[in-house]
Amino acid sequence: MHAILDEGYMCHLGFVRDGAPIVLPTLYARVDERLYLHGSTGSRPLRMTGQADPGLAVCVTVTHVDGLVLARSAFHHSINYRSVVVHGIAHQVTDPEEKRLALDALVDHVVPGRSRDSRPANTKESAATAVIRLDLDEVSAKLRTGGVNDEPEDLALPHWAGVVPVHKGYGTPLPDPDLAPGTELPDYLAVR
Amino acid sequence: MHAILDEGYMCHLGFVRDGAPIVLPTLYARVDERLYLHGSTGSRPLRMTGQADPGLAVCVTVTHVDGLVLARSAFHHSINYRSVVVHGIAHQVTDPEEKRLALDALVDHVVPGRSRDSRPANTKESAATAVIRLDLDEVSAKLRTGGVNDEPEDLALPHWAGVVPVHKGYGTPLPDPDLAPGTELPDYLAVR
Repeated sequence: MHAILDEGYMCHLGFVRDGAPIVLPTLYARVDERLYLHGSTGSRPLRMTGQADPGLAVCVTVTHVDGLVLARSAFHHSINYRSVVVHGIAHQVTDPEEKRLALDALVDHVVPGRSRDSRPANTKESAATAVIRLDLDEVSAKLRTGGVNDEPEDLALPHWAGVVPVHKGYGTPLPDPDLAPGTELPDYLAVR
Repeated sequence: MHAILDEGYMCHLGFVRDGAPIVLPTLYARVDERLYLHGSTGSRPLRMTGQADPGLAVCVTVTHVDGLVLARSAFHHSINYRSVVVHGIAHQVTDPEEKRLALDALVDHVVPGRSRDSRPANTKESAATAVIRLDLDEVSAKLRTGGVNDEPEDLALPHWAGVVPVHKGYGTPLPDPDLAPGTELPDYLAVR
């Protein structure tokens, strides 16, 4: 489950408001047995948390698509994927030191090594950034791997069958037009 | 919103069970002003729908990540993305003809043209496949595009800043080892 979580950085955060489900994409990072989720203080899930608050019941889901499984029969079409679902009570991070570590983790989860190569948040910026914490207590994983599972009587059908691998790719980094003169592409981006 | 929905095939479906949020990944397809979502009849959201049921309040979210925005300051790090959030009451599809069209749409949404090049579901398979319908009545989109938004006083910092494009890619299709002799890779896969 750690490996699945560590491979991504975008999760879907679910919570309940006025009895109705809400699902929003947001950034996350895993630190030990805990997830940190990013959000602006104005965002709806975070307004419901806080020191005087008992926390917010959430479901955080991370999904990686690995392949399209094309069977001879429409019924056996499938997706190779890995997903992790975390249930729990999320709390807003208020301790300044924990928040600093969480913000570094969020940046480094997207681009490892990046937090050391950027200006850290100042007090005002840190206050304007909400972070919520979710312990990895109730976690489940689900995945599909492998090839096509057609019925034996379908194997002779003339339809192509197999798996189309799916992967995430990165394009050439596009530098900001106002880069300070002599600023080179850092190694942690060149290897992507 | 249609363009964002049509570009993907995996959504995150949120619903409420016993007061707690649940978020699960599943396949979807858009047909006109309606989404169809795939699930096995044993899955939790679908057990709650059905003919005698008033439907299930759901939130369906589709997110595409387009780029990593690396600012000189940690605070201004961001993600270029496009997402659509659909709220509504989902209903199980019970009409056989609507279900047949929905299943074709689900297959074609992942690989355009594929439904015509596979054996259609028989009655038993169709009965074993649950499809839920969600009208596109309450839909919102959110996105970020463009470059880095650093503070003016940070522009001279020595940190590289810019955007790393993110895209989904497909690998070489891996044929099933039991393909009928002479089965060629179809054109709709060769061009991916």
